[in-house]
Amino acid sequence: MATKEPLIIRDKTQMTKWSRTMRSQSKLIALVPTMGYLHQGHLSLITEAHKHANVVAVSIYVNPGQFSPNEDLSTYPSDFQGDIQKLMSVPGGVDVVFNPKNLYDYGEGDSGGEGGGDGGVGVVSCIEKSGLGHESWVRVEKLEKGLCGKSRPIFFRGVATIVTKLFNIVEPDFAFFGKKDYQQWRVIQRMVRDLDFSIKVIGCEITRENDGLAMSSRNVHLSPEEREKALSINKSLSKAKSAVEDGQVQCEKLRNLVIQCITEAGGTIDYAEIVDQHSLEKVEFIKGPVVFCVAALFGKVRLIDNMEINL
Amino acid sequence: MATKEPLIIRDKTQMTKWSRTMRSQSKLIALVPTMGYLHQGHLSLITEAHKHANVVAVSIYVNPGQFSPNEDLSTYPSDFQGDIQKLMSVPGGVDVVFNPKNLYDYGEGDSGGEGGGDGGVGVVSCIEKSGLGHESWVRVEKLEKGLCGKSRPIFFRGVATIVTKLFNIVEPDFAFFGKKDYQQWRVIQRMVRDLDFSIKVIGCEITRENDGLAMSSRNVHLSPEEREKALSINKSLSKAKSAVEDGQVQCEKLRNLVIQCITEAGGTIDYAEIVDQHSLEKVEFIKGPVVFCVAALFGKVRLIDNMEINL
Repeated sequence: MATKEPLIIRDKTQMTKWSRTMRSQSKLIALVPTMGYLHQGHLSLITEAHKHANVVAVSIYVNPGQFSPNEDLSTYPSDFQGDIQKLMSVPGGVDVVFNPKNLYDYGEGDSGGEGGGDGGVGVVSCIEKSGLGHESWVRVEKLEKGLCGKSRPIFFRGVATIVTKLFNIVEPDFAFFGKKDYQQWRVIQRMVRDLDFSIKVIGCEITRENDGLAMSSRNVHLSPEEREKALSINKSLSKAKSAVEDGQVQCEKLRNLVIQCITEAGGTIDYAEIVDQHSLEKVEFIKGPVVFCVAALFGKVRLIDNMEINL
Repeated sequence: MATKEPLIIRDKTQMTKWSRTMRSQSKLIALVPTMGYLHQGHLSLITEAHKHANVVAVSIYVNPGQFSPNEDLSTYPSDFQGDIQKLMSVPGGVDVVFNPKNLYDYGEGDSGGEGGGDGGVGVVSCIEKSGLGHESWVRVEKLEKGLCGKSRPIFFRGVATIVTKLFNIVEPDFAFFGKKDYQQWRVIQRMVRDLDFSIKVIGCEITRENDGLAMSSRNVHLSPEEREKALSINKSLSKAKSAVEDGQVQCEKLRNLVIQCITEAGGTIDYAEIVDQHSLEKVEFIKGPVVFCVAALFGKVRLIDNMEINL
């Protein structure tokens, strides 16, 4: 059931022009920011977007600003033509695909010398190394620090900054994020509130494979054996949730259950934390809504997943 | 020659609504962000704004986010009714005055605990102390560090953040800043470029009193004696400029000239630096366009001034 072909826009000025034309026609605009290599999880965001807006824009851009030089920017999977086909398979399709070449090249040569400072973080992203003079970053100073922020200290700075750039270019009324990236969703929600963007951020439920693995563009890098082992993440989170429902409220016990299950399966835990759903602060005893967030490595592939527990 | 009374808007949603109505009528919107206690320098920005835009909005908001707890937030002068009269004296007047009560109160109670972290800077602003849960900050990581950034380490973080908020609320086509706050102007220019705001930033020349003192809302705090002494800033900068025109290109000599002149007049130098007009990096020998930036204390009043030298 192929639908319309999306308009493909590469130039940011053209993108803003398109959005302003839509707004002048009183159309509500949705933005679904992605890094491409789309899967059913992304497509579910588009389906949700159609419920809120009159027109849907999808951005496809692998953001170097959220990768540190030792991370997997160079091997991040991509398949632009395949992505377009997938977008056309969604009922209603999408109106625009924004696919810029480089959102950190301002066409002025290197006006910033060696690139930005490290902002006191002590690490840099692929942007500083490339020396294009970009030096403005959005920081969500508390939410960016825990969970994924510990092992990826510049990650949320990069995410908040690219999302700000996309918001300024696309000027949407709604933006859609998957709750698989739970911390990212909360960081963006807080940023939108704190910086007074006139945009409603909508978090969408995790899409899983039939066997329970959370969908991720990085799953493609898993060997069949690693993929089998990776099921331990979702399985152990479900076990933990059942344990809570059976009365276990001590987070240490619940964490040990998950850590043991994933480790026995052959995964290496980055973190397994039970945190408040809004502040993302660690919880010792479950008294209200929390989210159990996990990051683990299988081979070289780092996967994240989470489960909300609404006690 | 009093002109029309401006519409006064206190609510940010109303402000955005006004701007979007203007844009839907194809009007170009100018924003002149101020902290009030307006003087001829501010009014010159409005005159410039009329040359570019169809409608002019002035924001009057003393931003706690750019003051550290030991600075002069509580004594920052204000005179809202006087400001409105002054705005009405400008040919063409202004269309809107945006005068919000508190741009850091999100009406959700304190969802952020004790307030944001210090972002590695080691100091906090009046916002963190007030504990309203704001934790998103825009950093222009290189330009924010030198000159005023040395003695006021959270200042440009606060400026970039409030200007981002105002840009998102007002959604202007043009924004006007005085070159008296030279570093601020460059920080905002860079931020607008790096974060892809669809806004043109226009820097306006310094407005001076007849005797040469750069206009500033803080001048009101100077005693007559201090005010007299403060003339040494502009006088010494003019001397330095003449010396350059006479062939002196060694910055150390030029700096000493200015430091000596201000110190002999009774001022206390915070900094006196000759820097590149764009990168604001220190220059040793003048080979091209530079700007000589000075900050000095007279009594308890900290004044800044600068002079572009276009060799």
